[in-house]
Amino acid sequence: MDYSLNSRSVAEATEHWLRRRGVDKREIGELVMFLQKEYYPGLTMEECMDSVERVLSKREVQNAVLTGIQLDVLAEEGKLFAPLQDIVLNDEGLYGCDEVLSLSIVNVYGSIGYTNFGYIDKMKPGILKRLNEKNGKDVHTFLDDIVGAVAAAASSRIAHRKQAEKETDEYVDEA
Amino acid sequence: MDYSLNSRSVAEATEHWLRRRGVDKREIGELVMFLQKEYYPGLTMEECMDSVERVLSKREVQNAVLTGIQLDVLAEEGKLFAPLQDIVLNDEGLYGCDEVLSLSIVNVYGSIGYTNFGYIDKMKPGILKRLNEKNGKDVHTFLDDIVGAVAAAASSRIAHRKQAEKETDEYVDEA
Amino acid sequence: MDYSLNSRSVAEATEHWLRRRGVDKREIGELVMFLQKEYYPGLTMEECMDSVERVLSKREVQNAVLTGIQLDVLAEEGKLFAPLQDIVLNDEGLYGCDEVLSLSIVNVYGSIGYTNFGYIDKMKPGILKRLNEKNGKDVHTFLDDIVGAVAAAASSRIAHRKQAEKETDEYVDEA
Amino acid sequence: MDYSLNSRSVAEATEHWLRRRGVDKREIGELVMFLQKEYYPGLTMEECMDSVERVLSKREVQNAVLTGIQLDVLAEEGKLFAPLQDIVLNDEGLYGCDEVLSLSIVNVYGSIGYTNFGYIDKMKPGILKRLNEKNGKDVHTFLDDIVGAVAAAASSRIAHRKQAEKETDEYVDEA
Repeated sequence: MDYSLNSRSVAEATEHWLRRRGVDKREIGELVMFLQKEYYPGLTMEECMDSVERVLSKREVQNAVLTGIQLDVLAEEGKLFAPLQDIVLNDEGLYGCDEVLSLSIVNVYGSIGYTNFGYIDKMKPGILKRLNEKNGKDVHTFLDDIVGAVAAAASSRIAHRKQAEKETDEYVDEA
Repeated sequence: MDYSLNSRSVAEATEHWLRRRGVDKREIGELVMFLQKEYYPGLTMEECMDSVERVLSKREVQNAVLTGIQLDVLAEEGKLFAPLQDIVLNDEGLYGCDEVLSLSIVNVYGSIGYTNFGYIDKMKPGILKRLNEKNGKDVHTFLDDIVGAVAAAASSRIAHRKQAEKETDEYVDEA
Repeated sequence: MDYSLNSRSVAEATEHWLRRRGVDKREIGELVMFLQKEYYPGLTMEECMDSVERVLSKREVQNAVLTGIQLDVLAEEGKLFAPLQDIVLNDEGLYGCDEVLSLSIVNVYGSIGYTNFGYIDKMKPGILKRLNEKNGKDVHTFLDDIVGAVAAAASSRIAHRKQAEKETDEYVDEA
Repeated sequence: MDYSLNSRSVAEATEHWLRRRGVDKREIGELVMFLQKEYYPGLTMEECMDSVERVLSKREVQNAVLTGIQLDVLAEEGKLFAPLQDIVLNDEGLYGCDEVLSLSIVNVYGSIGYTNFGYIDKMKPGILKRLNEKNGKDVHTFLDDIVGAVAAAASSRIAHRKQAEKETDEYVDEA
């Protein structure tokens, strides 16, 4: 029998693994709010959540989420080969594959998201702080970058939509 | 006669145009210090400057610096075609070619520089603040990202070197 | 008065400048067909053109198209500063800003487009061959990469859509 | 005891795993020759091999090589979670994390390597053909892109060096 990919199973696995790794999508929405509220004072949590959902519905994003979480999980179980095991377990400073994978998430709504990604990754607001606390058990080397990248991409989507709304309003005003 | 590129002329033009656009390389060194001092308390300005020079000596970086400054200058002179003229002049929110070009600078010392680039671009310490002030005359749409990207790449280089130093010391200690 | 961007003007300028630089969108559609026909034998020119239009409707793409064409035009008119003028005029081998800008186009439908971009850029089928002929007058240093990148992104979109169609059919078959 | 990374162990693991996965570095050198011989007729295998070694000595590259091979190996052993297991095992068409990781290798010598990467990935000369043959046992979803990316980066390095040599000769000629 031929291999046949089922898109729904990829989407569902993404939902499942984010939840299982302790990520509440609402917390990603809060990161979006953190990044965008100063630019759009009227921004609602509903709009933020809607953008997070849209980002997470993209296959490119789902692939990166699953691949990154898989590597975190394997490091937690001690199943990576040496020295990758130690590198991922300790989130080694010169290891950049987590950033590389995350950039592919940021990219889905264009390059304007790069700076938001870097900013949030340094500031570590909300869930990002929790994911970065070392408790000697959980490994979130990839997951923290992934969550930040989803929030950055969702922020880019909001910037695009808000511009579209503004132009529609102007058009209406002119009428 | 054949076209023959002279690498020295590319390097010299990079120096010339950075200076002419008001960028003192020492200020880029200060951005590196801002980004790295918390990780390496003994870091010296000389090390920061050395890394900035090495980043600026790379052709890939020089190409991006010259291309970005050229677009800033043309926007200042009102010589871009519509609507690109307005987009660059106003550093329009959905325009990401400045970030795209800057990423090619960050990349020369690897992906670990992405977050530093985004962080500095949001925080705008030192020279980045000055470059971002709108005085109705200067256009720095590309230059501010370029300067931040050079500082981020120089920071990545320092991270690589500090790791190498540490391992050499350990080796000596073991002997 | 506040600066107010009009998205329609950006879209229209993209159409205008592609046409004015000698690019018939149908030729980009033919590149898509060249890249995808072996994978999808029933692929129609209409589907290819539809994907090209969708790629060109994205702001991220429009920004890159306009910026690249602007640099080509200025090089043609001899209006870039030295040595950038010679570099762009001669499509110098170590200059990669054209590839960098084009990657931001490829990225709009994800990373699976990278290889198509590289392949078409080397093979230079159809319009890409014409754009690369040096006639001592036209400069297409950026345009050839841009056109290849639009075709690569449109190909990625087709891959995503064909997978979706296949899964829908399977669903129907199962019913 | 503090975690302390040893760079030599990362370099040695890279050598070890490439060999163990059936990659002879000489074959990567042959890909470089395939890509560059038309531009530099006097290019020697020694120069190609030297560039391959230099690319492989970079930590950024080693990280990507180890991470990619680890995922291939785990897929071969059936140890990835669903549906990632099937995706990597079958090198699914919409999965782009292999290309994303490989781009971080290409990037170490700049953006001029993108097109070589895409070209070689489509043409599959030499070792790339072998790595792509499905024998129902080996999984090379990441490895084939990694090998192509190392060859593309090594080609970029040669382009940079050949330009430097040419300028030195001109300088000598002028003297």
